Amino acid sequence: MTALLLRKPAVWEPGSQLDLSSIYNPIEKDLGKVEQSLEGIADSGFPLLAQLLEYTLKNGGKRIRPALTLLAGKFYVYDSALLIPMAAAIELLHSATLVHDDIVDNSPLRRGKPTVSQVWGSSRALLLGDYLFAKAGSLAASTGNLRAVRLFSQTLMTISGGELKQTSVAFSSASARDYYFAWIGAKTACLFSASTESGAVLSQSPEDAIEAMRDYGHNLGMAFQIVDDVLDFVGEEGELGKPVGSDLREGTMTLPSILFAESHPEDNLIKSIFETKDAESVMLAVERISNSSAIDECLQLASEFCSRASRALEKLPDNRARQSLMELAAYIVERRK
Amino acid sequence: MTALLLRKPAVWEPGSQLDLSSIYNPIEKDLGKVEQSLEGIADSGFPLLAQLLEYTLKNGGKRIRPALTLLAGKFYVYDSALLIPMAAAIELLHSATLVHDDIVDNSPLRRGKPTVSQVWGSSRALLLGDYLFAKAGSLAASTGNLRAVRLFSQTLMTISGGELKQTSVAFSSASARDYYFAWIGAKTACLFSASTESGAVLSQSPEDAIEAMRDYGHNLGMAFQIVDDVLDFVGEEGELGKPVGSDLREGTMTLPSILFAESHPEDNLIKSIFETKDAESVMLAVERISNSSAIDECLQLASEFCSRASRALEKLPDNRARQSLMELAAYIVERRK
Repeated sequence: MTALLLRKPAVWEPGSQLDLSSIYNPIEKDLGKVEQSLEGIADSGFPLLAQLLEYTLKNGGKRIRPALTLLAGKFYVYDSALLIPMAAAIELLHSATLVHDDIVDNSPLRRGKPTVSQVWGSSRALLLGDYLFAKAGSLAASTGNLRAVRLFSQTLMTISGGELKQTSVAFSSASARDYYFAWIGAKTACLFSASTESGAVLSQSPEDAIEAMRDYGHNLGMAFQIVDDVLDFVGEEGELGKPVGSDLREGTMTLPSILFAESHPEDNLIKSIFETKDAESVMLAVERISNSSAIDECLQLASEFCSRASRALEKLPDNRARQSLMELAAYIVERRK
Repeated sequence: MTALLLRKPAVWEPGSQLDLSSIYNPIEKDLGKVEQSLEGIADSGFPLLAQLLEYTLKNGGKRIRPALTLLAGKFYVYDSALLIPMAAAIELLHSATLVHDDIVDNSPLRRGKPTVSQVWGSSRALLLGDYLFAKAGSLAASTGNLRAVRLFSQTLMTISGGELKQTSVAFSSASARDYYFAWIGAKTACLFSASTESGAVLSQSPEDAIEAMRDYGHNLGMAFQIVDDVLDFVGEEGELGKPVGSDLREGTMTLPSILFAESHPEDNLIKSIFETKDAESVMLAVERISNSSAIDECLQLASEFCSRASRALEKLPDNRARQSLMELAAYIVERRK
């Protein structure tokens, strides 16, 4: 891998790093119970299933989505007997989509480890994903709340429909930015908003509070994905758990490439990658895009989504959970992995 | 393809063929509405999704599973507003598992047409299956009945867990028969019993009637799969919609091969197929197994499952639907496709 000389984005000043564990403080105990629930699932089934579940679920992920469900449940009637299984269901749904995504994208690594499909083959990965969807649906149904169950199914329809659409639309620079936002809306923001909305629904929140939570989750998810796509250019491989430049290498145009292409209409850099697909062109493109203004523009757009998320929270009662959700919006933009 | 000289099983005497359309008579109108609901789903979404849905859902299948849900709903409070969406959900879940199975098995044909994964590639087939699971879950949730939703999730867990197990167990002739029954229980009988159980649950049946319906569905499903596996040896390619001998060719031991191996312990026929995998050995094995007593033994076992199914029905009120379910049990064993 060529060593990259990267310009650090302005938003990443030393000392501005927020700490997830303090953000999670109001729900720390119950997030631990979600983790236990996931561990319980990982220890179940016949040997191969247990092995696959353990590999997939004990992964040291940030658990942002289940934390969102629990935090969103903190404004009206907090009921851990409903919120913990729902939070676990959300994390399982997320895991299932990642396992299937890694088959579709033929990804070698996820969080620094070989993907399930690399280790056990794509057939087993496919069946594991199906099992996780079903287990997630079963946990969502265990809340006894049909609205949460419907939201859950709708989310999976949006995610899989969105990914399917992504396989059929040819790249056109004119519509690329709009298309990107629609795509990450289906791929990422939809599950973030389901995380917060389900927490609000299961804590007897009034309709306007449910809507505010959905709004917060959607905007947070948009910001999260933009930052993820920025990190694919300027992150550090050790922290990302996968090589820098994976998206371009797989032929996927994300926001940094799109903004770079918009501001360099005469430049054939990206076009040439899609034609030649050789490793050197990819690394050159990553270096040029990383050092372009596209990165700061992306982070600016991510910040705007986070501001919208924070504004949505203003409609909710002020409490420690709201403070955490505010901090989480800031964390999302400042994170480095 | 070598021409096969096949001995027709004794159960297939001319004139004993039952007609599905007369069996479906008590629920004909509502089964038409299930079909319309599937067509409505097939006409939705962006162009690629609509095309994939149409290809998958307008397939001229026998619709046995949704018919079971409707018929099972005919004993207490028949409510078409709940039973039609549930029946459609069951058929969608079935379609989703077939789409994913065809990826796992790398099957070229399904009902005489190239499979989705052959035409559009395995990534799109995977995402289509996920979409169908979600749509099915959404329809199940639209019944407003949490027990039906839980049953639905549990069924998908059993099916995907069973298929996953199937990928990890080495063949041993000592346990082959038991293993086969466990496998088809998870793969097929589970969805049949979910079809009948959900119909019973959604029509306010008492618990003993729900149990009888689950029992009927399970036994019917076991018989159905055994006959399917027999047809893979003695069926006609035009009616099957796929080449004869597909299971052996893919290295899958089903009941005819297992019973043949049990009664020919010194014969290396099947062992040699798994070693050489050449087309000629497969055709020779298909011909020998087709003309062996294993076929009639399989059909005898299928008949026993159907008898158990019929006995379970005796616990239910006698009506036209019960007559249909009895006839369906007979049809399952006599069918030729």
